[in-house]
Amino acid sequence: MKLLRYGPVGQEKPGMLDSSGTIRDLSGVVNDIGPSTVDDLTLAKVASLNPSNLPAVSGEPRLGPCVGHIGKMICIGLNYSDHAAETGATPPPEPIIFMKANSAICGPNDDVRIPRNSVKTDWEIELGFVIGKTAKYVSEADALDHIAGYCICNDVSEREFQTERSGQWTKGKSCDTFGPTGPWLVTRDEVADPQNLKMTLDVNGKRFQDGNTNTMIFGVKFVVHYLSQFFTLHPGDVISTGTPPGVGLGIKPDPVFLKAGDEMVLEIEGLGRQTQKCVPD
Amino acid sequence: MKLLRYGPVGQEKPGMLDSSGTIRDLSGVVNDIGPSTVDDLTLAKVASLNPSNLPAVSGEPRLGPCVGHIGKMICIGLNYSDHAAETGATPPPEPIIFMKANSAICGPNDDVRIPRNSVKTDWEIELGFVIGKTAKYVSEADALDHIAGYCICNDVSEREFQTERSGQWTKGKSCDTFGPTGPWLVTRDEVADPQNLKMTLDVNGKRFQDGNTNTMIFGVKFVVHYLSQFFTLHPGDVISTGTPPGVGLGIKPDPVFLKAGDEMVLEIEGLGRQTQKCVPD
Repeated sequence: MKLLRYGPVGQEKPGMLDSSGTIRDLSGVVNDIGPSTVDDLTLAKVASLNPSNLPAVSGEPRLGPCVGHIGKMICIGLNYSDHAAETGATPPPEPIIFMKANSAICGPNDDVRIPRNSVKTDWEIELGFVIGKTAKYVSEADALDHIAGYCICNDVSEREFQTERSGQWTKGKSCDTFGPTGPWLVTRDEVADPQNLKMTLDVNGKRFQDGNTNTMIFGVKFVVHYLSQFFTLHPGDVISTGTPPGVGLGIKPDPVFLKAGDEMVLEIEGLGRQTQKCVPD
Repeated sequence: MKLLRYGPVGQEKPGMLDSSGTIRDLSGVVNDIGPSTVDDLTLAKVASLNPSNLPAVSGEPRLGPCVGHIGKMICIGLNYSDHAAETGATPPPEPIIFMKANSAICGPNDDVRIPRNSVKTDWEIELGFVIGKTAKYVSEADALDHIAGYCICNDVSEREFQTERSGQWTKGKSCDTFGPTGPWLVTRDEVADPQNLKMTLDVNGKRFQDGNTNTMIFGVKFVVHYLSQFFTLHPGDVISTGTPPGVGLGIKPDPVFLKAGDEMVLEIEGLGRQTQKCVPD
């Protein structure tokens, strides 16, 4: 299934995409797509419905983040071997993890606001996954049972804030609108192999990132296991698994950064497409 | 006012402490102490009530975090001049900020669970403040208007996870129960000067931290202003402002870390007391 949330910011309703690409309203079935509805039982109930019996949503409503009330968004840094090579960094011995503030999360096609005083706003297409079942101290073998599904994340990053302004990466990762998430939560049964998905990111029609999750250093299973050694992963938590080569910071000879008016288009095989316009904050 | 939340985990009710130390039930007045109720208008309404007309809560119920549904918890690192001197670090030119996962937040007297494989779990008493009014690009002059009140935070930290396991501090800061918050949200009218509050932390009856917020490098006003340059602070967000000297990592000649059975007691002038027992996870 391709689950989604549609409507104005903060008032999103749950929906699903039917096989013809029409949004079907799920608000008569579940109150939201979020922590209390991404468990296997609820997803099975939704999957058992005939989409043609659900109300069709007309027009082209705004899409919200594909999961509501996200508890935490954990991101993995430097998790692609070809991206590590590109930046000249040694691949880390274990995953680098950091957090993106929930207040940064937005819809897949919402405007990305360039912060005042920003000169180095950059893009990062990433495979995200959504926790469906509480995970603490889980084994790699059991890891996939804890995943409800997958989505696209754009880990938008301000490089000066991230690395030149003292300390941790938080400042450059958590600006408002720096977390477009969606368009869909694609349930795990539809993703045969999360470690073999093509992913691309274009800016103003030019391809900058053209990767595949098969060069991920720490795969999805390991990441679930690993994170669960430190803290509990709760249903509705989102984990964004790092970016392949081609971020603006890495462009030679001169880095390329986003400016108002730029348009990003992100695609991951089977997970849909995001389009964001950059605007001043 | 001293606002609080009491009851079992996840089912906390709003309350306030009256002048005799009795908890008065506020659930007939507000649905919770949280993002939608910490604005000036709601707090003024609560302040106008006569506590003796509110139901008294009998017994000694568990206290939850003094704010529910916290949107994000932002922490400031290395923010006391005497703590910086103790660790041999140069004070940072601008605040170091990082995040603590919401899933780490717990009640002020809940057990602190020592993670499996942890050998360096440590304490940090900190002055926390709670945002009452949305803050983005605010000046220092206007900063205090955006604060609902103050509370104690224990920024429990696993030092090996934090600094010896690749990358960012997240792993050592976000373990379950690493964020005791409360007992009370003390409204800002009761805190004459947030930059002159004594604070102490004892472990097993021995005093380890004995500081004052007057040695804070970046004060509360500046922190609100500074953070709001990067992202929006929303009502119910909590900011923890760093710790004075005396953390376990800094003890000479040998660091001291927490083990199951240890008891921490934290106090900040006017903000009450926390007591946590350490238990295995």
